[in-house]
Amino acid sequence: MHDLSHRHEISGVVTEVGKNVTKFNIGDRVGVGVLVGSCKTCECCEQDLENYCPRIIFTYNSYNPDGTKNYGGYSDMIVVDQRYVLRFPDNLPLDAGAPLLCAGITVYSPMKYYGMTEAGKHLGVSGLGGLGHVAVKIGKAFGLKVTAISSSPQKESEAINRLGADSFLVSNDPEKMKSAIGTMDYIIDTVSAVHPLLPLLSLLKVNGKLVTVGLPNKPLELPVFPLVMGRKLIGGSDVGGMKETQEMLDFCAKHNITADIELIRIEEINTAMERLAKSDVRYRFVIDVANSLSQ
Amino acid sequence: MHDLSHRHEISGVVTEVGKNVTKFNIGDRVGVGVLVGSCKTCECCEQDLENYCPRIIFTYNSYNPDGTKNYGGYSDMIVVDQRYVLRFPDNLPLDAGAPLLCAGITVYSPMKYYGMTEAGKHLGVSGLGGLGHVAVKIGKAFGLKVTAISSSPQKESEAINRLGADSFLVSNDPEKMKSAIGTMDYIIDTVSAVHPLLPLLSLLKVNGKLVTVGLPNKPLELPVFPLVMGRKLIGGSDVGGMKETQEMLDFCAKHNITADIELIRIEEINTAMERLAKSDVRYRFVIDVANSLSQ
Repeated sequence: MHDLSHRHEISGVVTEVGKNVTKFNIGDRVGVGVLVGSCKTCECCEQDLENYCPRIIFTYNSYNPDGTKNYGGYSDMIVVDQRYVLRFPDNLPLDAGAPLLCAGITVYSPMKYYGMTEAGKHLGVSGLGGLGHVAVKIGKAFGLKVTAISSSPQKESEAINRLGADSFLVSNDPEKMKSAIGTMDYIIDTVSAVHPLLPLLSLLKVNGKLVTVGLPNKPLELPVFPLVMGRKLIGGSDVGGMKETQEMLDFCAKHNITADIELIRIEEINTAMERLAKSDVRYRFVIDVANSLSQ
Repeated sequence: MHDLSHRHEISGVVTEVGKNVTKFNIGDRVGVGVLVGSCKTCECCEQDLENYCPRIIFTYNSYNPDGTKNYGGYSDMIVVDQRYVLRFPDNLPLDAGAPLLCAGITVYSPMKYYGMTEAGKHLGVSGLGGLGHVAVKIGKAFGLKVTAISSSPQKESEAINRLGADSFLVSNDPEKMKSAIGTMDYIIDTVSAVHPLLPLLSLLKVNGKLVTVGLPNKPLELPVFPLVMGRKLIGGSDVGGMKETQEMLDFCAKHNITADIELIRIEEINTAMERLAKSDVRYRFVIDVANSLSQ
């Protein structure tokens, strides 16, 4: 596969197929996401939840059974078992579609699993980065009212005018947060920094659901009282299985959802890494490996 | 209503009915649980979730719209709006059935709401007190495999032989806890003391659900990693609405489930309160108010 890639959101065109490959032909537009292998026989694999298989093999920085290491998309070729390859719908661009393989499925899967897709309900998206900006778009495609919640007031115009959020809430403005108490049905919390959960839980109505997809490196404080008194839940979720990832790509293609990206050449990667460290990207860098190498 | 009661788990026989009462007749065996009023018009009330109504009126230590205070079951009479009165099925005893109005519904409601009733699945019940011992019985009635989880090794025989648990796990025995990692589908956590969630979350399989019904007075530590990597959820729940409370009583009557109680006379209440402070009760005191007063 010739690719246009990021660490583990790889897209490209099939250049060769093995003799037992039935799903793909040379020339097909395809993608490879976070995983390239799993045991195929456990309860998770049998339920199309390869992403939770205890013997999962990640696309990046993970070892294969033969001891070789996977380096993800920093390459012009990758060989992958067809089970872990996704089909790119015709109208989904290879560049802006690629980040959906991580950011897209990470927010789509919990919305489906936890029942956060009922049209007309109110979704809060906490954190407006790579995951959050896609969550806003997917939420709108499900027919939800979407409020972007961010600590950066300067993101308001972008959230509403560019991403399509219905409203914007500054998370460290106590007055605005207070006025939004008990107004949301669902929240997707994409913030990876350690942060308080109580303000987010307070935004939820009775039966509200808060799904965390970020990975803070320390435990968060969990106030039990609002969970109990409002029958609220906090759930986790980690990417998705292959079947659901395909479903997500088809959904995004149907609704013309892509990630907002900056397409770079491979020579620009060091600058991009420096900017990433400062969260200075809207919202994902995608490396055009094939064109970088051909010129 | 003549009653046989605890703070807010009251049972007795109807002695008088108002002229608009249609649900009950004099002589009916009835119960009153945690709430005696709500607004009747909000979204919660309209969905039979009076227990989450923001204008809920509690049976004990709560004020009515007219400014009078409610003192719960410490009385030989109580006047209650028929909406908040439950019917005791014929075979449900007034004494051992009464605690179900709090302990029973508190564990039954989340099991239904969070989908923890699939026969053959494995339920852990953390904490073996008033709530926990009923959760074991209700779990068995749903056809679940039930493991009682307790810090008191001496409760093993009782949990298995008297309450019907399939197995027993000592929560502060690291070896036993380790061997049970990833074996449970659901956990009901009834512990009100501040306690670590990580050991409980570790007991859950992928897609496992932990419901907390205790009310620790400080936030708990929430490790996000196991939530995300195993798509686990932590949910809260607080008693139940009137319709579901009736359903629970009918379910318990059908499965011959009652609470294990110590029936006392009202003169014994001070001793009982002292024993309660030391958690020395199996598992609920019930005061026989009517017989205390008639003799």
